[in-house]
Amino acid sequence: MPCVELCRTGSTGVAVLPEWRKDILTGRWVVIAAERGKRPLDFKVRRDRRAAVLCPLCPGHERETPPEVAAYRPVDTPPDTPGWRVRVVPNKFPAVRGEGPAAVQSCGIYRAMPGIGVHEMVIEAPEHVRGFEDLDPEQVAAVLRMWQERSRALRRLAWIKYIQVFKNTGQAAGASLEHTHSQIVALPLVPDALRAELAGMAEHVQATGECPLCAMLRQEAEDGSRMIVQGRHAAVFAPFASRFPFEVWAVPRAHQEDFALAGEAVIRELAHLLRDVLGRLAGLLGSPPYNLVLHTAPVNSPCEHYHWHVEVLPRLAVCAGFEFGTGCYINPVAPEAAARHLREAGKSRAKKS
Amino acid sequence: MPCVELCRTGSTGVAVLPEWRKDILTGRWVVIAAERGKRPLDFKVRRDRRAAVLCPLCPGHERETPPEVAAYRPVDTPPDTPGWRVRVVPNKFPAVRGEGPAAVQSCGIYRAMPGIGVHEMVIEAPEHVRGFEDLDPEQVAAVLRMWQERSRALRRLAWIKYIQVFKNTGQAAGASLEHTHSQIVALPLVPDALRAELAGMAEHVQATGECPLCAMLRQEAEDGSRMIVQGRHAAVFAPFASRFPFEVWAVPRAHQEDFALAGEAVIRELAHLLRDVLGRLAGLLGSPPYNLVLHTAPVNSPCEHYHWHVEVLPRLAVCAGFEFGTGCYINPVAPEAAARHLREAGKSRAKKS
Repeated sequence: MPCVELCRTGSTGVAVLPEWRKDILTGRWVVIAAERGKRPLDFKVRRDRRAAVLCPLCPGHERETPPEVAAYRPVDTPPDTPGWRVRVVPNKFPAVRGEGPAAVQSCGIYRAMPGIGVHEMVIEAPEHVRGFEDLDPEQVAAVLRMWQERSRALRRLAWIKYIQVFKNTGQAAGASLEHTHSQIVALPLVPDALRAELAGMAEHVQATGECPLCAMLRQEAEDGSRMIVQGRHAAVFAPFASRFPFEVWAVPRAHQEDFALAGEAVIRELAHLLRDVLGRLAGLLGSPPYNLVLHTAPVNSPCEHYHWHVEVLPRLAVCAGFEFGTGCYINPVAPEAAARHLREAGKSRAKKS
Repeated sequence: MPCVELCRTGSTGVAVLPEWRKDILTGRWVVIAAERGKRPLDFKVRRDRRAAVLCPLCPGHERETPPEVAAYRPVDTPPDTPGWRVRVVPNKFPAVRGEGPAAVQSCGIYRAMPGIGVHEMVIEAPEHVRGFEDLDPEQVAAVLRMWQERSRALRRLAWIKYIQVFKNTGQAAGASLEHTHSQIVALPLVPDALRAELAGMAEHVQATGECPLCAMLRQEAEDGSRMIVQGRHAAVFAPFASRFPFEVWAVPRAHQEDFALAGEAVIRELAHLLRDVLGRLAGLLGSPPYNLVLHTAPVNSPCEHYHWHVEVLPRLAVCAGFEFGTGCYINPVAPEAAARHLREAGKSRAKKS
């Protein structure tokens, strides 16, 4: 039910279809994704702690998900049967759904539009494991290739402006299913966080003539205190202004705006590096909950410069009133200390293997 | 240790004093508040579940906190002894500390400054209870008056640019102590979230000639679907673009930029309304964790227009990869439904009493 309808009916107050709404104070967009008839206690995120044998993402349970939209599987296996290595299905409880283009509507002083978008789930492996740290580097590379493939497919919808790929691992990081999976949300707008990065990048380029991520790679390599592991095509370091304890970024060396265009060598090395650093985090901190977020350029709209990268955000501290009030973060671990611990964790892992 | 030192020493990598750091991608400021020698598992937020008899905030335990900087207490009782009704102490584990003015330093491409600021704790009542919902309206009004008093005192430091008052209630909302308390952080900068609001307000005023919060109050009163309770001086409603399930805002009717200047009638009514709506939330949702955040104008810097207000953010959903990646929120409860439930909760509370 679009906003205009909501305003007109007033008292019913139940949005049937999801709706995008804009906060006129900050410009922030929010998805109102309510379902009909929900009662106050119904909305709590459902925690699926079912054993592997009952897991809807495990092989043999393909009928418990919506039909697959893509998969890496032997050519002689039909869709929605076992045999796959990576499988993509529409999210069963999508945050956004429905076709564009986006039609912004007025509701008095407010602005809203239907909650259009595409929400998919990437089942990252047949094995019932927790995260990238438990997979073979080859398998992680297959997942990254699938992210690229879906990104290229979804941008064919001309009304899609941004494709957010992310991964929630562990309950405290928002994962409602234990089986390793990631999510892809294709949005009809360029979200706030990207707008802020694009503006910051443009400012830095104008002031210095250089992309800030290219500059970071150079400075972090020279300084060394926040560097964790360097490869030929990418480096992993703790960012100078880390928001979270043990936050790490994986950044490709070559300046490239669009993750979907990254070549095979970069993808293979990135898979290796992510698996390595997530393994170090798991060993060091006892498999902490984490979010993994891909930042890449908007699609179907001009974007002069961007430098795609992956951010890993361990969830060891609670975001609270200070963070929500100010938008600033308090990080109790210096990134230099985090990087040192993660470098040492790499050495001890190397010794063990 | 300032950033320049960190860069120079490189390998030590442990910040001794807190440090403000700027993310050059987004302009976001972060406080790195590490302590010397912390090991990977030491930094986890300590959960203080001690019984009331051992609570450091209860009367009789005044020596367990730093010496009080302000209190409402009988004139014949000395500081740091029982008898107080509201007590303010420096935060024992401050996120920021040290005197200004702020001196931004360069660290190659990065910018940082010492982690200056003031961090205080307001012990809101002698009783070992959970939140405003458990206090007398008169007691809540005393807390609000103390927020005003501390705000007026702290802004005498000319280098303070923003004063963030907030309240974390419940473990999942970041509270490490059970005893009802709030926090005041005086900052040497105007934080991102305020800058975004100020920009959005300016844009709305320019486009329509009206403050967006004044416009919201008018539209919400006319529409009614998101209104929860209206008083003579303030109204409480579920905002159109609520980020969180059951998010509510309390907004004074009179356009006023600075909370510290609010008069006695407004403070008394706000106390009554906040206690009322927090009581409804507690009854409806089983005492959910929540953050309460005061938004008010920056201090010691020109600010042409602002409209202070209080945001109550129940923490029933987990912020995860989507939110951190995009800056957008997914809210599974329509604000119209939340407001309806909270209106009904008011009726049943009225019947009971």
